[in-house]
Amino acid sequence: MSLVAVGTVAFDVIETPYDSAQDVLGGSATYAALTARLLSRQVGLIAVVGHDFPDDYVRLFERKGVDLAGLKIDPARLTFAWGGRYGEDPNQRTTLFTDLNVLTTFNPVVPPAFRESRIVLLGNLDPYVQLRVLDQMAHPEFTVCDTMNYWIANTPALLNDVLQRIDCLVINDEEARQLSGCQNLADAAEVIKSRGPRILVIKKGEHGAILFDETQVFLLPAFLTASVQDPTGAGDAFLGGFCGQLARESAITAGALRRAMLYGTVMASFAVERLGPDGVVHLSLDAVVQRMRAFKRAVAWPDLC
Amino acid sequence: MSLVAVGTVAFDVIETPYDSAQDVLGGSATYAALTARLLSRQVGLIAVVGHDFPDDYVRLFERKGVDLAGLKIDPARLTFAWGGRYGEDPNQRTTLFTDLNVLTTFNPVVPPAFRESRIVLLGNLDPYVQLRVLDQMAHPEFTVCDTMNYWIANTPALLNDVLQRIDCLVINDEEARQLSGCQNLADAAEVIKSRGPRILVIKKGEHGAILFDETQVFLLPAFLTASVQDPTGAGDAFLGGFCGQLARESAITAGALRRAMLYGTVMASFAVERLGPDGVVHLSLDAVVQRMRAFKRAVAWPDLC
Repeated sequence: MSLVAVGTVAFDVIETPYDSAQDVLGGSATYAALTARLLSRQVGLIAVVGHDFPDDYVRLFERKGVDLAGLKIDPARLTFAWGGRYGEDPNQRTTLFTDLNVLTTFNPVVPPAFRESRIVLLGNLDPYVQLRVLDQMAHPEFTVCDTMNYWIANTPALLNDVLQRIDCLVINDEEARQLSGCQNLADAAEVIKSRGPRILVIKKGEHGAILFDETQVFLLPAFLTASVQDPTGAGDAFLGGFCGQLARESAITAGALRRAMLYGTVMASFAVERLGPDGVVHLSLDAVVQRMRAFKRAVAWPDLC
Repeated sequence: MSLVAVGTVAFDVIETPYDSAQDVLGGSATYAALTARLLSRQVGLIAVVGHDFPDDYVRLFERKGVDLAGLKIDPARLTFAWGGRYGEDPNQRTTLFTDLNVLTTFNPVVPPAFRESRIVLLGNLDPYVQLRVLDQMAHPEFTVCDTMNYWIANTPALLNDVLQRIDCLVINDEEARQLSGCQNLADAAEVIKSRGPRILVIKKGEHGAILFDETQVFLLPAFLTASVQDPTGAGDAFLGGFCGQLARESAITAGALRRAMLYGTVMASFAVERLGPDGVVHLSLDAVVQRMRAFKRAVAWPDLC
């Protein structure tokens, strides 16, 4: 296995000013796995769903080449469900509900075939689950973790354990400020890196992302898309593109990390263009490559006189 | 004359969480001229001040090579004064006061030596004054204009006349949304360009800037600075760097516009690092060139496998 992804698989309810969707496939592991599989030869999913999880969704993952040996179906509980509503400004999100259901008792088991994976993607969920997955991995080459404000505020000790065991943290600007207590992102990066991860990526949504590696900073704008339908899963799609690219690199160099930033950004740009997971479900590697070319033209530096 | 800049020259009162300053030199023309003069061989200033404007400030401009033949001193009135307070988040600004004083009766006169200028920089002030300056120019090669929410809301007809007579509008994202009625910036750019300017630059503060030229988009992040002391004048410094670079280009090509974006961004990064105008007053071309190198390293694309 080249890449193992743990995270949530959910039923999402999404309301935007233009459209809405009920019980569509969602969750951090869903968006991450469905983007990573476009780049990484093998993607193994570790997640839990309930007895109500439809076969159609199982087959969707399988058809896309995602290995479900690590998907647990809990016969006693319902699938995790989340609902969100976006305003005219897609950065304004209201959470309508969060029904944890199967997540309350999730104790992940990493299948033997997954344990030798080079890249470990810890999608946003309880840091306890992230730690349990790390415990079962043999000797991953590179470990990448996402988290969110809820875990920063409510499980700081567990999250601290995670930080000390990962290579790279990928969070958004608001979370970086909350986690570090610093307003300035350069200061925030110093504080966060001193707590564990050698590498930090700060996502800024429509404003791009910043990579802090061991010695340098890489500033990358977001791809400008004319159609932002639904920001749900954009950060997870970024993570999937980022880790998927790392999985096809022969070594995790400074150049590899910058390339991973490009693929994360392009995957996120597709995720927001359609409602729910459609932007990543129906995505082809050809479309990714074409957008990468357009992206390169849009950020190309002129010659300096 | 290669570049003529019209705008405000002000006394600023600035309060930040860390520091404060009384009656420092400020205004859109001040920041624009003091950055443009680092790049453009000749910079002519068109502005008005009151009888209270100190000789020291006049000499400062002259020492920096800014031609003051277009600076009117109104013996009957006080200099324009503005006060602002910033929160911990430097994007949160409260205007403490705005005393228009000399601006209420300003009718600009462009000195004969300025009329043949190649580049015209219309800094943020009353669009009536911007139009009066345009009326007096012989045949500028490229005209660049800034404005703000106040003029968009209160003088739409005058601003519309300006839009039809300029080559390039430089505004921030909030203003672009207000002016166009579009939330999405790609949509906003289409609407704004349909109203006149061939070229549009949307500034996004710490998140960078976007250039929409006649056929392409150029996405540029901001330079990441560890020290943001005072955002006052950052947008004007961007405009000064942008126009200053255009003034030293032999023709206004797509490459020239992208280079202008780089210099605008670097100038703005210096403006925010010190309180009031100090970041641009004490700036040298050497420092600009060095930062441009660091900026280039920080945005350099990796090879794509």
